Amino acid sequence: MSKVKKFILSEDEMPRQWYNIVADMKNKPLPLIHPKTKKEVKPEDLAPLFSEGVIEQEFSTERFVEIPDKVLEIYNIWRSTPLVRAYGLEKALDTPAKIYFKNEGTSPIGSHKLNTAAAQAYYAYEQGIKSLTTETGGGQWGSALSFACQYFGIDLKVFMVKVSYNQKPYRKLMMNTWKADVIPSPSDKTAAGRAVLEHDPECSGSLGIAVSEAVEMAVESGGAAKYAIGSVLNHVLMHQTIIGEEAILQMEKAGDEPDVVIGCFGGGSNFAGIAFPFLRDKLVKGKNIRVVAVEPQSCPKLTRGVFQYDFGDNAGFTPLIPMYTLGHNFQPADIHAGGLRYHGAGSIVSQLLHDNLIEARSIPQIETFEAGLLFANAEGIIPAPESAHAIAQAIREAKIAKEEGKQRTILFNLSGHGLVDLYAYEQYFAGKLRDYPLSDEYIHRSTSELEQIIK
Amino acid sequence: MSKVKKFILSEDEMPRQWYNIVADMKNKPLPLIHPKTKKEVKPEDLAPLFSEGVIEQEFSTERFVEIPDKVLEIYNIWRSTPLVRAYGLEKALDTPAKIYFKNEGTSPIGSHKLNTAAAQAYYAYEQGIKSLTTETGGGQWGSALSFACQYFGIDLKVFMVKVSYNQKPYRKLMMNTWKADVIPSPSDKTAAGRAVLEHDPECSGSLGIAVSEAVEMAVESGGAAKYAIGSVLNHVLMHQTIIGEEAILQMEKAGDEPDVVIGCFGGGSNFAGIAFPFLRDKLVKGKNIRVVAVEPQSCPKLTRGVFQYDFGDNAGFTPLIPMYTLGHNFQPADIHAGGLRYHGAGSIVSQLLHDNLIEARSIPQIETFEAGLLFANAEGIIPAPESAHAIAQAIREAKIAKEEGKQRTILFNLSGHGLVDLYAYEQYFAGKLRDYPLSDEYIHRSTSELEQIIK
Repeated sequence: MSKVKKFILSEDEMPRQWYNIVADMKNKPLPLIHPKTKKEVKPEDLAPLFSEGVIEQEFSTERFVEIPDKVLEIYNIWRSTPLVRAYGLEKALDTPAKIYFKNEGTSPIGSHKLNTAAAQAYYAYEQGIKSLTTETGGGQWGSALSFACQYFGIDLKVFMVKVSYNQKPYRKLMMNTWKADVIPSPSDKTAAGRAVLEHDPECSGSLGIAVSEAVEMAVESGGAAKYAIGSVLNHVLMHQTIIGEEAILQMEKAGDEPDVVIGCFGGGSNFAGIAFPFLRDKLVKGKNIRVVAVEPQSCPKLTRGVFQYDFGDNAGFTPLIPMYTLGHNFQPADIHAGGLRYHGAGSIVSQLLHDNLIEARSIPQIETFEAGLLFANAEGIIPAPESAHAIAQAIREAKIAKEEGKQRTILFNLSGHGLVDLYAYEQYFAGKLRDYPLSDEYIHRSTSELEQIIK
Repeated sequence: MSKVKKFILSEDEMPRQWYNIVADMKNKPLPLIHPKTKKEVKPEDLAPLFSEGVIEQEFSTERFVEIPDKVLEIYNIWRSTPLVRAYGLEKALDTPAKIYFKNEGTSPIGSHKLNTAAAQAYYAYEQGIKSLTTETGGGQWGSALSFACQYFGIDLKVFMVKVSYNQKPYRKLMMNTWKADVIPSPSDKTAAGRAVLEHDPECSGSLGIAVSEAVEMAVESGGAAKYAIGSVLNHVLMHQTIIGEEAILQMEKAGDEPDVVIGCFGGGSNFAGIAFPFLRDKLVKGKNIRVVAVEPQSCPKLTRGVFQYDFGDNAGFTPLIPMYTLGHNFQPADIHAGGLRYHGAGSIVSQLLHDNLIEARSIPQIETFEAGLLFANAEGIIPAPESAHAIAQAIREAKIAKEEGKQRTILFNLSGHGLVDLYAYEQYFAGKLRDYPLSDEYIHRSTSELEQIIK
């Protein structure tokens, strides 16, 4: 019989705490800045937007935070997720490297997003909040929050980036199944949406615009609704650390340790989820481990953006965030990885990158789909296009190991499966996809206005 | 913290044998009959159709059959599947019953079908067969065999029932991902398909027609291609017993025993998979356990068909099978459970039903979708429409338990998730679905010709 392929934790072996990496960062992330007063954002400034539980976590410097029982109940629907040894992929690449992946696609909504959706819906429920708004790019986050809100009896409105809304009817249907109201963005439901449409009626949308719409609707509700976000902010990243905390225990079961940990990068949530717990020993004990964030070539904020205060949304409603950014008005190409089409990174990840504690790489779209198909053939799982970016980087690392004739252990996060993204694969098969390299000029143009914003 | 929700087996706890229920049946299933000679089908008669390994199993009376290592390697991609306590559903129903389900939807192709696909592709590979043909209804079987064939380097042609081909582009794309050639059936590629199209150019197809096409193409290949089938035959049902063998061990871990075991019923494969291992103690020791097969109201061969020799396909290419059948030309309504639109049951299940060792129930389409949505809301998993039939029956049983104020333990098989079937839910949301009760006359008309066939 074959060697063990999957490493699973029983429910009583499951981690019961999220990890807050801020506690271990020597250079703490810079504070959020209020867009009007230009002063540091205080917890009370966020009260119109978020639940109290979430705000407390956003500013927390506690190292570990207990996961509430009701959130663990939801996690138990599918967690722990398997840590899998990718024997098939290793064989296909004929590499001396050992490749592991954490399969977050086993969640009932198909991705890691339910880890934070469960927590955010719970904290809203705990506070008696009856209604939430949010945005979604690829649709994973919207699906996850739809289920979580339905679980806790909360109404949900989802602004879905129009290009994804049109490309992914099944994602919309998942949200409908859990009773969420899904609105293609830009929409005429908000001033932010109307302003964009006036300028460009055919606009295919962006996460930045959708964030503006969701935030505006929550703020304008006069307290009836709050807002929830699927990535970027500290509390979201912390909720995702359940991924890496499990993976640490599972790598122990496998008797192995990763030399490099890889996650695809949109707003940072699945990347932080797998990476931060492994970074702990690097920050605290100086352990030698590489951590790589992988972004699309067409939206290269980590590899080509500037580290700067910028808005989290298109219209400038959010606090100013210290981030690697391409400018909050950056309009990414319509690549088939909606979850990665975001202009900026969160404050923690940006600080870690600035301090050279993590690395970043970008991958062209075609290489991404080639990697996704190689993986589907070798491991039987069709990956989400987002996750295929991490696979592509894992393949690059495995090829280097082969060239160098060196053993190395690679761990990547398979943030989701692609069964609801098959339209993207259809386009790839039909030869309709292309790469979107960006000129230096374009990057300069999209970031040059940032100076004025923080003045 | 909550009670344990999921019961999982580690790879070293996994069963290593399939269970062949024929060994324990007092009344053995009747033999297959050759359509031309009208004599019992011998193994050599099946040689043009199937691999040697599969034929040996079709006739085997061994009680347990070892699972080959290479098949276990594929099983290890996702197995064991979780046995889940449906606390959410129990709460939603306010029932004293304990409800468990076996989640076969965690397979990378989303259903139980990979259990036998892996085995059938392996036996073809072992014999050096380079090419297989098959049919698919809902698309689960075609997807599964596509991956399994790709894994072993075998070419595959899939005849997909036209109504599913049109309703389920994502299933087709999954098959394409694994390099299968997918042909809508009825097609002009075969004489059987052309004959149907001549009579009815708009025919939406049926599994019976698709079987005819796939069988014809294999037989006409002169040995170059063999045929693989996703249900009905003994070897297929045996491969699926890995489901129930795992479930027995998992129920032991849960410290519980089912009073009733439920599976939805198309050709019998997922039903047999969950049920046969639990029937063992009933057959051998007379243990008191109920086993219920659930079919759609619109295709009621178990509850309203006749027990009779009939063809497995529309054109009459297959051996005559002793089956509960609606007639091999029965044209079921276009319900959104393609996997259950088959006119007959296999010889083992039919004999067990005839001997009152199992029960059968039928469920209308609307009740099925209501059950599926209740489950999606309560447990977070959107079920395949096929599986929702089993859920509906589990709900009926749980309601009876409530009415009677009695404890009982219900186990059903969640044969697959519905993420690639969301079109069906869209139709339901839009109020476009209806029930298809059949008149006695229609049933009589569809079965009355059977007498002539076995004369």
